Amino acid sequence: MKAAYYAEKHSMRMGDCHPVDPGAGQVQIQVSHCGICGTDLHIYHGHMDHRVRMPQVIGHEMSGVIHAVGGGVPGWKPGDRVTVRPLDYCGECPACKAGHSHICQNLKFIGIDVPGAMQSLWTVPARTLHRLPDNLTLEQAALIEPIAVACHDVRMGEVKPGEYCVVLGGGPIGLLVALVAKAAGAKVLISEINPFRLKLASELGIPAVNPLEVNLPELVEQETGSAGADVVFEVSGAAPAAEMMTKLPRTRGRIVMVAIHAQPPKVDLFRFFWRELRLTGARVYEAEDFDQAIALAARHAFPLDRIITRTVPMETINEAFDEMQSGGEVMKILVRCE
Amino acid sequence: MKAAYYAEKHSMRMGDCHPVDPGAGQVQIQVSHCGICGTDLHIYHGHMDHRVRMPQVIGHEMSGVIHAVGGGVPGWKPGDRVTVRPLDYCGECPACKAGHSHICQNLKFIGIDVPGAMQSLWTVPARTLHRLPDNLTLEQAALIEPIAVACHDVRMGEVKPGEYCVVLGGGPIGLLVALVAKAAGAKVLISEINPFRLKLASELGIPAVNPLEVNLPELVEQETGSAGADVVFEVSGAAPAAEMMTKLPRTRGRIVMVAIHAQPPKVDLFRFFWRELRLTGARVYEAEDFDQAIALAARHAFPLDRIITRTVPMETINEAFDEMQSGGEVMKILVRCE
Repeated sequence: MKAAYYAEKHSMRMGDCHPVDPGAGQVQIQVSHCGICGTDLHIYHGHMDHRVRMPQVIGHEMSGVIHAVGGGVPGWKPGDRVTVRPLDYCGECPACKAGHSHICQNLKFIGIDVPGAMQSLWTVPARTLHRLPDNLTLEQAALIEPIAVACHDVRMGEVKPGEYCVVLGGGPIGLLVALVAKAAGAKVLISEINPFRLKLASELGIPAVNPLEVNLPELVEQETGSAGADVVFEVSGAAPAAEMMTKLPRTRGRIVMVAIHAQPPKVDLFRFFWRELRLTGARVYEAEDFDQAIALAARHAFPLDRIITRTVPMETINEAFDEMQSGGEVMKILVRCE
Repeated sequence: MKAAYYAEKHSMRMGDCHPVDPGAGQVQIQVSHCGICGTDLHIYHGHMDHRVRMPQVIGHEMSGVIHAVGGGVPGWKPGDRVTVRPLDYCGECPACKAGHSHICQNLKFIGIDVPGAMQSLWTVPARTLHRLPDNLTLEQAALIEPIAVACHDVRMGEVKPGEYCVVLGGGPIGLLVALVAKAAGAKVLISEINPFRLKLASELGIPAVNPLEVNLPELVEQETGSAGADVVFEVSGAAPAAEMMTKLPRTRGRIVMVAIHAQPPKVDLFRFFWRELRLTGARVYEAEDFDQAIALAARHAFPLDRIITRTVPMETINEAFDEMQSGGEVMKILVRCE
């Protein structure tokens, strides 16, 4: 019974798991795998110390099997294979009342604001559960959460079959956005500077270019008969991408803001006026995005095993974080939590 | 037969009108009144010398009576009272083909890119015409064009009855946006720093506050039960407003970018992500916006005569531009063109 704790900046610490008996409306899950997310890397770098109490178990991209069920939890039983939509909302604030509980004004993100999945036994509200289909391994199923992010982003972008999409940033989320948009019938181009990520995107059937080597606005003009892109996803968080994103869309084209820009970059608002562009923020997911992610994964719409670079034992988690940070030949690293 | 020419920076020059016989698909209008728009002021300041040939007749907020009709113009005859939607589109570019001819990629704005309405006889394509109802004076009808801008902005903001809107900037367009949103059933607040504009907005029934004296985000929080505004219209073009606009909306609230930000300001993209905000650019208008503007004006939905500060003879046009520029007790100045 083990757990991985964020101890302090640049340090994860292995320790004992302290199982919490499931109360009313809760379940206890035996966690199988947990992916390391970009957000976990932010935590590791100390950027989120204002939200994370230390030491704290982190992690939220997970798969597992129900171990115990609390009171008042119909429909779930030990042995059920599940993943968790790690959002705990208040139900009382204006956002919840408006039907936007996924961005509740008092949202607790499970794995950031409260303990996460990198532990053998994890207790969560039963309302966060999604059932896993039999034809997905628990390793593959640890990707459902980031796929759900991508499903939400593509849905917020209102991508339609035949549309031309550009994804700025080809990391795990950018690559999944591209794959989900392609599955929705769009033609997709990834803009990315990391050679490994460029190569992987191409191998998975997504054309990918380096914007430092290619004139991206000219390329998009050529590809779209001088119209411009229907949808641009900004997934990189880089200031140059905030400049690029307004150069690419067609008249009334859409930009989806997936990335976290910690500092406000300069944005060409004139271009919004001139082309009547639309920018939509997209954060986390709603239940239907998890449903879609599970459906896509279950029909093996894209090769999940190619996105998982490595699966490592929890004992080597510090090395895994350092590898994630390296910017080398890495896409998604999973941690075994059993 | 007279005309007002933009001659050079800070100089309008009176001269003869050179009437152009209406060709096929054109009409010649005896112009009655022409309002001075913020865009005309930009031209006067030399900011648009890259688009305006000199000397050139400018002006596009007009009313008039058809004087002569060219060939192939069914439905129009001399004596018809009209206003002009001053957009000449190519019909061939991707924007036109996508149904966005009002923001045609080769758009000629009549009164900027080609000669405008500040002349006794003005020849324009018949497809730009809208018929004026009998119960509007030609003086009042010169406001149809800016009202159509406001109708477009409110439509792009998808304002619904009962929604709470904030308009940043209480000049002619901001005031009209507020009045049109109110007519659509919204509760509206104007943010403005000019005392005359604040007073006029209040007198026309729109609450108006000075953001240098009031904490606007706190006020909007109080007014909306901590939810935030449903829609924010940025009409000021000021960099502080680009910062303010992201602080006010509720989760999934909308921002409409009406203003021209010539320089890209810093924009809090994190707030777009966090609250899933939407920013939509809104430029000029479509035919239906003119139809709505005429319908609103015809039922005297708001007191147009209060918005017209003064009507002046063309001979004093330089003084009128200087008064517009003063930032004093001025909203809309009309020029008599007959």
